[in-house]
Amino acid sequence: MGKPSIPKGTRDFLPKQMAGRNYIFDTVKTIFKNHGFLQIETPAVENLSTLTGKYGEEGDQLMFKILNRGDKFKKAISNRLEKEEDFAELALKYDQTVPFARFVVQNQNELTFPFKRYQIQPVWRADRPGKGRYREFYQCDVDIIGSDSLLCEVEFIQIYNEVLTALKIPNYTIKVNNRKVLYGIAEVVGEKEKIIDITTAIDKLDKIGLVKVNQEMSNKGVSDDAIDKLQSIINLSGSTNEKLIALKAFLSSSEKGLQGVEELNYIVDYVKELGLESSISLDVTLARGLNYYTGAIFEVESVGFKGSICGGGRYDGLTDQFGLKGMGAVGISFGADRIYDVLLENDLFPKHVLQTLEVFFVNFGSEEVKYIMPLLSELRSRDISSEIYPTSAKLKKQMSYANSKGARYVILIGTNEIETSKVSVKDMITGSQEKLSFNQFLSKF
Amino acid sequence: MGKPSIPKGTRDFLPKQMAGRNYIFDTVKTIFKNHGFLQIETPAVENLSTLTGKYGEEGDQLMFKILNRGDKFKKAISNRLEKEEDFAELALKYDQTVPFARFVVQNQNELTFPFKRYQIQPVWRADRPGKGRYREFYQCDVDIIGSDSLLCEVEFIQIYNEVLTALKIPNYTIKVNNRKVLYGIAEVVGEKEKIIDITTAIDKLDKIGLVKVNQEMSNKGVSDDAIDKLQSIINLSGSTNEKLIALKAFLSSSEKGLQGVEELNYIVDYVKELGLESSISLDVTLARGLNYYTGAIFEVESVGFKGSICGGGRYDGLTDQFGLKGMGAVGISFGADRIYDVLLENDLFPKHVLQTLEVFFVNFGSEEVKYIMPLLSELRSRDISSEIYPTSAKLKKQMSYANSKGARYVILIGTNEIETSKVSVKDMITGSQEKLSFNQFLSKF
Repeated sequence: MGKPSIPKGTRDFLPKQMAGRNYIFDTVKTIFKNHGFLQIETPAVENLSTLTGKYGEEGDQLMFKILNRGDKFKKAISNRLEKEEDFAELALKYDQTVPFARFVVQNQNELTFPFKRYQIQPVWRADRPGKGRYREFYQCDVDIIGSDSLLCEVEFIQIYNEVLTALKIPNYTIKVNNRKVLYGIAEVVGEKEKIIDITTAIDKLDKIGLVKVNQEMSNKGVSDDAIDKLQSIINLSGSTNEKLIALKAFLSSSEKGLQGVEELNYIVDYVKELGLESSISLDVTLARGLNYYTGAIFEVESVGFKGSICGGGRYDGLTDQFGLKGMGAVGISFGADRIYDVLLENDLFPKHVLQTLEVFFVNFGSEEVKYIMPLLSELRSRDISSEIYPTSAKLKKQMSYANSKGARYVILIGTNEIETSKVSVKDMITGSQEKLSFNQFLSKF
Repeated sequence: MGKPSIPKGTRDFLPKQMAGRNYIFDTVKTIFKNHGFLQIETPAVENLSTLTGKYGEEGDQLMFKILNRGDKFKKAISNRLEKEEDFAELALKYDQTVPFARFVVQNQNELTFPFKRYQIQPVWRADRPGKGRYREFYQCDVDIIGSDSLLCEVEFIQIYNEVLTALKIPNYTIKVNNRKVLYGIAEVVGEKEKIIDITTAIDKLDKIGLVKVNQEMSNKGVSDDAIDKLQSIINLSGSTNEKLIALKAFLSSSEKGLQGVEELNYIVDYVKELGLESSISLDVTLARGLNYYTGAIFEVESVGFKGSICGGGRYDGLTDQFGLKGMGAVGISFGADRIYDVLLENDLFPKHVLQTLEVFFVNFGSEEVKYIMPLLSELRSRDISSEIYPTSAKLKKQMSYANSKGARYVILIGTNEIETSKVSVKDMITGSQEKLSFNQFLSKF
């Protein structure tokens, strides 16, 4: 058999990478908990029917399906069935949001609403793999379901700020928009039914520039008149307040559009109250791909990093499709992989995160091992990570192992140390070596 | 669409269940780290060829395969292919051990050996679901690869003891045996080639009793003479030392069997040195199903709970199949689901684990909300979990929400409290209520 490999777009996480990832996960978890969010998990595998049709056509195509087994498989073969759906009843989840909506409906009698939950699990998408794009990746989602209150949106802007500040993410901006505003814009320019084409085009402004955005809209059949009218919106500039005033004027004939402006106004008002207004930026060209958003939408960028590192928005009514009506819902998601890349590129992982071992004992033989065993137990009972090399290999080999583990102290105990009840301690940072009683050594911690 | 559901044998984890599970995971993680083990993760999805043939026939059948997509699927259809393998190149992992062996070979240049790692991730088996048996479940694995030293086995017995003691698991026993001893037994009774049939039958002694064990061996073609000879081994009793002496005599003509006894002797010697001998029990009928074990095998039981809660053993040479020869390896696994059940049945989850919220603020309206916002920030900056109801709903509704969250304190701030710079604090345990300055309230933590 050839060199072993893993599927395209999947990854192994080595100890150093795990330590960095856990630093991110632990940071977000602490902040989620401080805000009263509770952790849940849903299975990796869902019924295919639960997921199909919730993400748009592309999502359906990119879903990993589980092959039916045994009799079901044989039946599909003997009946000469020919569609992928005939061979699969289950699929790997594509995001956390749709399974969460399913979870809420299924477990509604055991939950108190508004229900605040967070969820940190992998999802799977058969996307073309690329830099920062994987087929199996973690999502850190935090959501409130069962409330229409815009205070939820405000809380999520707080959470963005707390997490990104705690992680020291450089120069981030929380881009804010509202799906109702986008709907209103399409309505006002007389192209209500082309809203998806218009927002999809406008969303690409940063990437392809204004000329191509206009071309794309034209190709999709948006009228020249509408494209003309859209220019002032696409080019909207000024302070958040100035933008909101201009939007209100532009959308004066759209009830839904004005509702979106009002929601933005409310959010901005509270965000100012919290002193966080400099962290947000109203961006009318922000659209976000997924079908299920209905109100506020968010995306976070960090200067110097291409692409967004967080997303989110309001998705009222997603549970309708599972039989529970009238549930307001809003949530945000932290892109762990991209945040990891930002931290790595900017050398922002704290040193202690990567420290993996505190005390390493050199193994000189079985008598020494038996002498050392209770010392190891003592250290471990104090949550001081420590180990002994499993054989009495050459000192050089053992020291090289201690180095690779990043050991803080190396302890040498031979016949002489046992006789004098001392331990020889090498400080791996300073390089200094000293003989101490074990209790003296313990007092270093 | 009907009531939503999840696939057979999978589960949603609600906040209370997650809290209990996290208590178990955090406990094992701390102990693994104290012993110098480092965390890794491997993808959920592996190449089917990596997993096939490693678990025995049953394992291959119970694997969840991923349906090929697009052109590959169409090709299988148009070529009228008829085997499951023709429709799948990927599969969900069946355990952590085989992917770990693949990981070690693939990343060998970035690892220092002996490599001590732990891994806490779900695995998937299309088993018949039942009490404590799921199709998607977590395994907590901890392994050392790249060492033949029996000190590794000793360390794992220490880890079993530390984890099970920390979790207060009642009356547990670590059953110990050795595959070489089993091999030697089959050899001595003249049925070397029937070792799997013999061990599979003997392994069922607890469940089906001696008569049926003998019948099964007979049905599998084990000779009457061999079955006669096996009786003394199956009925082996006495202290661990007595058993070892009897085994040594029984296996005197089998080199491999004697090597197994020697290994057991070594392990028992060190376990005694550590004062842990009462935790282990030598059980010659312990076999364990998986094909890859080569030396020591372990299984842990807790009195009153049916089935084992942990397993493990030595599996030297598993990486051979991926092209890396001569790697000794040994590891153990904690069954998180079963341990959860034991803790639940015996009411062993500490109270603090289930406490989810410390401070709940009643929402009386927007003015009050703005007054409360900085107080919330202050509490959260001290890692005191706290929240405000998102709307000014009726007090009864808000209090019922606070109750369901298990809030420790409820704070009421209305016009009067704002004017006097006080907060009304209700202690939800004692039921008492008092007016305090916010700083006085903070001093409770």
